[in-house]
Amino acid sequence: MQNFDYMTPTRLVFGEGCIAKLPEALGAIGRKVLLTYGGGSIKKTGLYDKVRELLPDFEITELPDIQPNPKYDPSVLDGVRLCKENSIEVILSVGGGSVLDCSKAIAAGALYDGDPWDLISYKVRAKAALPIVDIITLAATGSEYDCGGVISRTETNDKIGYMDPHLFPAVSFLDPTYTFTVSKKQTAAGCADAMNHIMEQYFCEDSSLLSDGFMEAGLKSLMVNAKKCLADPNDYTARAEMMLACTYGCNGIYSLGNSPSGWPCHGMEHALSAYYDITHGEGLAIITPRWMKHILSDRTLSRFVKYGVNVFGIDSSLGDYEIAEKAIQETYDFFLSIGIPMTLREVGIDESRIGEMARHVAENEGLENAWVPLTEKDIADIFTASL
Amino acid sequence: MQNFDYMTPTRLVFGEGCIAKLPEALGAIGRKVLLTYGGGSIKKTGLYDKVRELLPDFEITELPDIQPNPKYDPSVLDGVRLCKENSIEVILSVGGGSVLDCSKAIAAGALYDGDPWDLISYKVRAKAALPIVDIITLAATGSEYDCGGVISRTETNDKIGYMDPHLFPAVSFLDPTYTFTVSKKQTAAGCADAMNHIMEQYFCEDSSLLSDGFMEAGLKSLMVNAKKCLADPNDYTARAEMMLACTYGCNGIYSLGNSPSGWPCHGMEHALSAYYDITHGEGLAIITPRWMKHILSDRTLSRFVKYGVNVFGIDSSLGDYEIAEKAIQETYDFFLSIGIPMTLREVGIDESRIGEMARHVAENEGLENAWVPLTEKDIADIFTASL
Repeated sequence: MQNFDYMTPTRLVFGEGCIAKLPEALGAIGRKVLLTYGGGSIKKTGLYDKVRELLPDFEITELPDIQPNPKYDPSVLDGVRLCKENSIEVILSVGGGSVLDCSKAIAAGALYDGDPWDLISYKVRAKAALPIVDIITLAATGSEYDCGGVISRTETNDKIGYMDPHLFPAVSFLDPTYTFTVSKKQTAAGCADAMNHIMEQYFCEDSSLLSDGFMEAGLKSLMVNAKKCLADPNDYTARAEMMLACTYGCNGIYSLGNSPSGWPCHGMEHALSAYYDITHGEGLAIITPRWMKHILSDRTLSRFVKYGVNVFGIDSSLGDYEIAEKAIQETYDFFLSIGIPMTLREVGIDESRIGEMARHVAENEGLENAWVPLTEKDIADIFTASL
Repeated sequence: MQNFDYMTPTRLVFGEGCIAKLPEALGAIGRKVLLTYGGGSIKKTGLYDKVRELLPDFEITELPDIQPNPKYDPSVLDGVRLCKENSIEVILSVGGGSVLDCSKAIAAGALYDGDPWDLISYKVRAKAALPIVDIITLAATGSEYDCGGVISRTETNDKIGYMDPHLFPAVSFLDPTYTFTVSKKQTAAGCADAMNHIMEQYFCEDSSLLSDGFMEAGLKSLMVNAKKCLADPNDYTARAEMMLACTYGCNGIYSLGNSPSGWPCHGMEHALSAYYDITHGEGLAIITPRWMKHILSDRTLSRFVKYGVNVFGIDSSLGDYEIAEKAIQETYDFFLSIGIPMTLREVGIDESRIGEMARHVAENEGLENAWVPLTEKDIADIFTASL
């Protein structure tokens, strides 16, 4: 077991009707609020009106139209400007992980005098950030329970994951009923995203019975409940359990004491969605089984055997390679079964920029230090196998 | 899944050598320190000297001799007085859960003008508490990661569990090597304590695939690793994993969204150790299988079947009652196998005060609201079956 230094101070308020506590939670922090949201789905569902009704005594400035794979320009820059102009005290993020990731970058940028990109690119470490309260409407990223975010900069094809301990949300509201209206496509992509968060932690050199058990439970729960959500979008229990399994995704609690893995699938997927703006969870689902096949070897075999037996219930009396190969096939088949397009071509990516993307990943994502180190050629091979 | 409102802001610093970060962590909070500890084992192991060496620039007042099942008088009262006399800014608790539980009561009492028992008995809710930093030397209670404690008041045979969100430790240091010197008896009792914490959350009406999986992983990890620790007290990996599995025990993370259980075994054990000052974990181990047998019925059967199949690997093709009874027997056998005296007589308790203890539990522990409600007669029957 590896040493660790861990903290997640975020308060989680979970369950149907939980936003009744929003005025109290927000009011304890501040009255001048930047309300951030996305393309308007919260207006269709009535959540926007509900939030405004709950906060008649707050001074609210709005930043709408935050896009999936949120953009540095204009969203982060606009948000930082609005915070400074309006002496914002707290950011209220209402939406999915993209809105929240963008809000985190704004929170740090708002209390920094220079170019916010300095913070996102770690040129400068944040000394403080505005507090964040969020209402999550999508079960996927786990951004509601971690201190990281991912921001894209279109002109340079950068998609950067940044983390800073100042960026834990103060309070996250999770009402599973807000995910009833999430489309089948986004429900499946959210499941794949969360499953990959767990796999990125599971496939490593050093783990424990405890962390393996946590993560196997997370994977099994996500698979069972995603299918239930697709069959009946209003299945409260399934939506709730999926939401919670996603929430634990990225703050480390699934895998405390594990050795680092380097998060290779995320490193590769960031290039796909930076170059082509595809849905992150779909990109991850496409890459994952190809990456697994690429790294399967005598060295990694035992992890795949454990994964296959404990997550998919594969007969442990089979040969080890047979179990591992079945486990990889089961991974692929599961993603396919929830409706994810499982080739790059289906999401509009062909071979033309694979070399360029592989070079970008090799130069920027540090995958030479991953559990199984990946060279530019390895990355290009995995992309090609994913076509 | 039930609604919940959850937060654990404690920073966990984990691993061999982690207390190198103590001066930084403590210094960020305050310089006037109340150092609390127990019967002197930290002097034998050298940890006391190490802590003093690390903190030459701090103004340290000491409260030694805190006993297991920590006492309101003198420990809590002395601690509160020392804090007030010396304008203490932070409490540094070095020892096991008893030292930390006592320190929590002191932390609340130090910032309260009245009788600290008002706070412990919930007559008055704490408005603030001194910050606490702890170094844990025993894998058992999980007090290092929750906001609760248990305090005994000898003259009234009270043993009260109290919780308050001000009482989360600010920083908990967990170095598994400090548990190498823990005796076989205390290692086994710590394992039983932590297992029972999980069982108290597992046996309930409403749970999820996710929480069940977390808790089954916790139980399996504790059983495997306790045996390893008993076989080789210096097995770092086993000590580390046991320490982490214990740490999650009481803050709720194992079972977010589960319905409440009422923690019946703790309610009953509190009387045993209040009346007889026995080792808490041993009392729990003795009661647990008798309680299980007592509540097994058509209503509770499915939980015991799940427990038996997933924790002990009992053949799921057997009849449900056969699985459940085997699971209860396995629970008993496991505790016996790690050397726990499995009858009340062996720990010095006979039938003479069972009636009195049962009445005390029935009147004070609220077990009429437990998952399976327990009357005074039920409690007396469980105690009698435990003789």
